[in-house]
Amino acid sequence: MSSEPQQATSQEQLDREAALTDEVLASFSDAPNPRLKEILQSLTRHIHEFAREVRLTEDEWTAGMEFLAEVGRRTDEKRQEFILLSDTLGLSMQTITINNQAVGNATEATVFGPFFVEGSPEIQQGGDISFGAVGEPSWVEGYVRGTDGNPIPGAKIEVWEADDDGMYDVQYDDDRMSARAHIYSDDEGHYQFWALTPVPYSIPADGPAGDMLRNAGRSPMRAPHLHFMVTADGYRTLVTHIFVAGGDYLDSDTVFGVKDSLVKDFVTQDAGTPTPDGREVEGTWTKADFDIILPPAES
Amino acid sequence: MSSEPQQATSQEQLDREAALTDEVLASFSDAPNPRLKEILQSLTRHIHEFAREVRLTEDEWTAGMEFLAEVGRRTDEKRQEFILLSDTLGLSMQTITINNQAVGNATEATVFGPFFVEGSPEIQQGGDISFGAVGEPSWVEGYVRGTDGNPIPGAKIEVWEADDDGMYDVQYDDDRMSARAHIYSDDEGHYQFWALTPVPYSIPADGPAGDMLRNAGRSPMRAPHLHFMVTADGYRTLVTHIFVAGGDYLDSDTVFGVKDSLVKDFVTQDAGTPTPDGREVEGTWTKADFDIILPPAES
Ligand SMILES: [Fe+2]
Ligand SMILES: [Fe+2]
Repeated sequence: MSSEPQQATSQEQLDREAALTDEVLASFSDAPNPRLKEILQSLTRHIHEFAREVRLTEDEWTAGMEFLAEVGRRTDEKRQEFILLSDTLGLSMQTITINNQAVGNATEATVFGPFFVEGSPEIQQGGDISFGAVGEPSWVEGYVRGTDGNPIPGAKIEVWEADDDGMYDVQYDDDRMSARAHIYSDDEGHYQFWALTPVPYSIPADGPAGDMLRNAGRSPMRAPHLHFMVTADGYRTLVTHIFVAGGDYLDSDTVFGVKDSLVKDFVTQDAGTPTPDGREVEGTWTKADFDIILPPAES
Repeated sequence: MSSEPQQATSQEQLDREAALTDEVLASFSDAPNPRLKEILQSLTRHIHEFAREVRLTEDEWTAGMEFLAEVGRRTDEKRQEFILLSDTLGLSMQTITINNQAVGNATEATVFGPFFVEGSPEIQQGGDISFGAVGEPSWVEGYVRGTDGNPIPGAKIEVWEADDDGMYDVQYDDDRMSARAHIYSDDEGHYQFWALTPVPYSIPADGPAGDMLRNAGRSPMRAPHLHFMVTADGYRTLVTHIFVAGGDYLDSDTVFGVKDSLVKDFVTQDAGTPTPDGREVEGTWTKADFDIILPPAES
């Protein structure tokens, strides 16, 4: 077992490697599910091409197996290390891009991320999603409409974000649920709520995905953002974020989630500026508008 | 989030997908280690091409993440589920093929497999590797030589195999060490030992790699074989098997390890046939010849 790349590769050697790939592809030729067959054959072709292209050494293969085993060891109900790896290799964003093709002026999608939780509390119009999470207050509002321009009443809008320390509720060792909620659009398709002005944060970087980023000279930081998932009968479900204009890491978001159309002004309001709902705020607060446009379900 | 493949793909959409891949590739452009950069960029390009080629749906991406998490859960010190996956996708054999290019008449390499154990017992010439493992006795002998034809004395020959139930020692719940040993070639480069006639066996198929095989309509069976690892100063280390001519699964070995040059006659000897070392054997036994040819270390 040698650990150095080998001598120049003869045609005979290349043929031998190609024949092996063909043998593996043929082993899937009787797969009863045609979609599974398509996926496994394409995956086989690409991982073999990868190994042949870089002339993967046996030591590197071993290191890869150990890396994957470590990713597995770090994965549990609260920590999704394979998703972090998919996110940081841009596979998650590529999947989103493939499955959310542009439809007219519809709002663009971005990565789901590992921090969504089912069963967030419902809030009313003007309610507050923070539930004890600390940060600068931010008033967020907008309309939910179809690509035809008609308002969508009763759209379920789920929102979640990190607190001022860059931590999601699920990253704490207690059972808190905070900085997440859902609200329904009103009869005009309008919604409004209090959130926190988003801040940059590091994805969990103390595992193998973080090691990969460090070894590759990449930052683990995400540009500041507020997550949205918007569901309405008859419309395509939208999973997206809005990003803070002028925020850090917009050009180097570690999961490649930033799209120009999703960068919004979070306009800072001086301390003492009257709030939309008369709430008393100590210090500054921000204000952001986000109109959401959903394509029909079948598009 | 839609779960069906989308409509026909516009050039604008294809450009958007390609631009995302380019963005991920660029994120690795400052990686301080050029080899790591090459590997991560090639891996990124191929996993993105895979996702784009099959138009991977979000549900399929999720299923893939869950599959990998399950592979991780099944991996521990005794069970190497990622290696099983690499083996059954032919990635292990492709890595072997890339790194063990043909050198003259040198013996071909094949997969290492997950069942090697360091520290096997040493046996003398004519010794027995079984150490209690049950099976038909088999007398295996041959010469270790360089590609120049000169004998290699003192080559370390490690051998291991499954017992008659198709199980390696490490697959039992006790601490037995059996059906594995090492021997050194003598002054003429010769070796000879008693082993067991290899039988077909199933790779561990009760985990996600086994699920993959079943869902793809593939068999988990390996053609009958005896593992060898041969190490000698100044020579390239050889990891290989010999396969039983006429054995089952030679054409469908689930890890793609069979090479014609490694298929050997295990000639059945009638009960009562005198053995090479005068040992009394009840019933039939077999006899196999395997000459091992090692290339120089730097080839
Ligand atoms: Fe986030
Ligand atoms: Fe084996």
